[in-house]
Amino acid sequence: MPRPTESASPATFPRPASAPPSEFDLIRRHFSRGTRHTDLAGGDDAALLSARPGMQLAVSTDMLVSGTHFFADTDPQDLGWKTLAVNVSDLAAMGAEPRWAFLALALPAADEDWITAFARGFYACADAFGVDLAGGDTTRGPLNLSVTIIGEVPAGAAIGRAGARAGDDLWVSGQPGLAALGLAALRGEVDLDPPGRQGCIAALQRPQPRVALGLALRGLASAMLDVSDGLLGDLAHVLAQSGAGAVIDSAALPLAALLATGAPEDKARACLLAGGDDYELLFTAAASARTDIDALSRRLALPLHRIGRITGRAGECLLRTADGEEQVLHPSGYDHFA
Amino acid sequence: MPRPTESASPATFPRPASAPPSEFDLIRRHFSRGTRHTDLAGGDDAALLSARPGMQLAVSTDMLVSGTHFFADTDPQDLGWKTLAVNVSDLAAMGAEPRWAFLALALPAADEDWITAFARGFYACADAFGVDLAGGDTTRGPLNLSVTIIGEVPAGAAIGRAGARAGDDLWVSGQPGLAALGLAALRGEVDLDPPGRQGCIAALQRPQPRVALGLALRGLASAMLDVSDGLLGDLAHVLAQSGAGAVIDSAALPLAALLATGAPEDKARACLLAGGDDYELLFTAAASARTDIDALSRRLALPLHRIGRITGRAGECLLRTADGEEQVLHPSGYDHFA
Repeated sequence: MPRPTESASPATFPRPASAPPSEFDLIRRHFSRGTRHTDLAGGDDAALLSARPGMQLAVSTDMLVSGTHFFADTDPQDLGWKTLAVNVSDLAAMGAEPRWAFLALALPAADEDWITAFARGFYACADAFGVDLAGGDTTRGPLNLSVTIIGEVPAGAAIGRAGARAGDDLWVSGQPGLAALGLAALRGEVDLDPPGRQGCIAALQRPQPRVALGLALRGLASAMLDVSDGLLGDLAHVLAQSGAGAVIDSAALPLAALLATGAPEDKARACLLAGGDDYELLFTAAASARTDIDALSRRLALPLHRIGRITGRAGECLLRTADGEEQVLHPSGYDHFA
Repeated sequence: MPRPTESASPATFPRPASAPPSEFDLIRRHFSRGTRHTDLAGGDDAALLSARPGMQLAVSTDMLVSGTHFFADTDPQDLGWKTLAVNVSDLAAMGAEPRWAFLALALPAADEDWITAFARGFYACADAFGVDLAGGDTTRGPLNLSVTIIGEVPAGAAIGRAGARAGDDLWVSGQPGLAALGLAALRGEVDLDPPGRQGCIAALQRPQPRVALGLALRGLASAMLDVSDGLLGDLAHVLAQSGAGAVIDSAALPLAALLATGAPEDKARACLLAGGDDYELLFTAAASARTDIDALSRRLALPLHRIGRITGRAGECLLRTADGEEQVLHPSGYDHFA
């Protein structure tokens, strides 16, 4: 679309054949690497792609806005990685294999250094997870990064949020809370030991989507999502959609690694339970799956923590303390308009 | 993702069960109508959908930014229509049937009246073209509307930009130039007769994607795209990708309807050749297809103008005037960073 607030180009503007490429061409060039499993990528009205036989498509969209989702001065290479990684994580959380990404970006100016670094980070994530950048759009405007990702999952095998059943175990992968501690450290709200601080900031800026885990949990997990808004807030989505409740076992929460960063216990616990941006997988599974899940944890060299269980008391989320007392938790999702 | 520039919610914020829905919930509610051909829509990490057997998927993304692509005070219902329509048009231009849309929107505030009107326009377009709103994202930020649309086309039947061959006819649908005249009228650059002005502004604000035409041109058109940046600029894309040239026959250009609005001839001609935003289809076809295309025009009650022909002189675009003289045209695409 042309912009209505400026004059249209004249019909016969004399543009010599030797004119240098515009800034816009330069930007496009940074996002035109080859693709591996796309029938037609970029340069036409639409990209063309083919799902493999027997596959359903899983599609997710995330929009990242400067000042809302990231600091304006975030390293563009980290931002490029994260822009794609958070979308890859959405597919991992369905048990779907990420395949194609579409990137729409609005930029206040054509800053080639920024673009170069952003593209490097974006493609690093694309390469790590076998994703083709199959198309997109570039325009001028306040910095905004919008990705739509498309993946494949065998028909009927996707893991939604509504399948948790009373008696299921509640699991979480890896180390939730690191990213929130990293954010608190960047804000100067908490003092961490130097190596701990570095690890927390890396968790915030370079999240690792759990694709291998998500795929391996097909047939094992009854419900799953990625922890993007905080463990309790995301758990609330599973409970609401499954019509279930949960009891979290305080002693099973993986607090040790957070304390090892030098964080005070209260802060570590809050980050673990309510901090977002870790992109770990939160899932439920029948008790009969424990052996398989423990074996999976060893095979992937990824800790999988059994932190509680699902109950039949719809919407009730309890925390069982070390001395057996049960506290009511009020999971509160993060609301951008709250 | 939580926003790093504000504090995270406390883990156990006491939110009573009877709390009213947040503004964010209200917005989501406006975009949660039922779907007709989506396996799982909204409310999970990803939507699930299935391509029909033998179908390729066509995918396109467009990002619309306030002040760049539309005036900030544009009627939100018109904007909702257009936000989807420009994406539908991209699929029409491939000969693909639009099926699923994903809407990511950043809003400066949760203005429910605006959202209500925008959603009404968006769904009017979705209903008109059989599109499911299958998912999306909502966040706070400078107004930004990003749509990804997915459609289906029989494998191998999509109409790209690279298939124009020397000797092919050059065609354009409908009435290109109306939208650009409407924009000029809104800017006060041109005085039009009242009914003409109204028609031009409607063309700008409620473009009609040519889906039925695009589908019917499968097997007839050798190359196709939609006129979004201007007829000459978009023709240049076809010529570049096809390695071809073109001669436009000045007398065949559909100028009469533009002159009937009261526009001066120079302005009308410039809008026809270089004005964007009409979303008419520009296509090429072998001369042997003329009878079929004329019949199609009658069936759809849509004028299809044979405005020139494709030549073998790569990149050269000529205008043949009424007296047989040939002028060189320099098609110049619209560049958001120029």
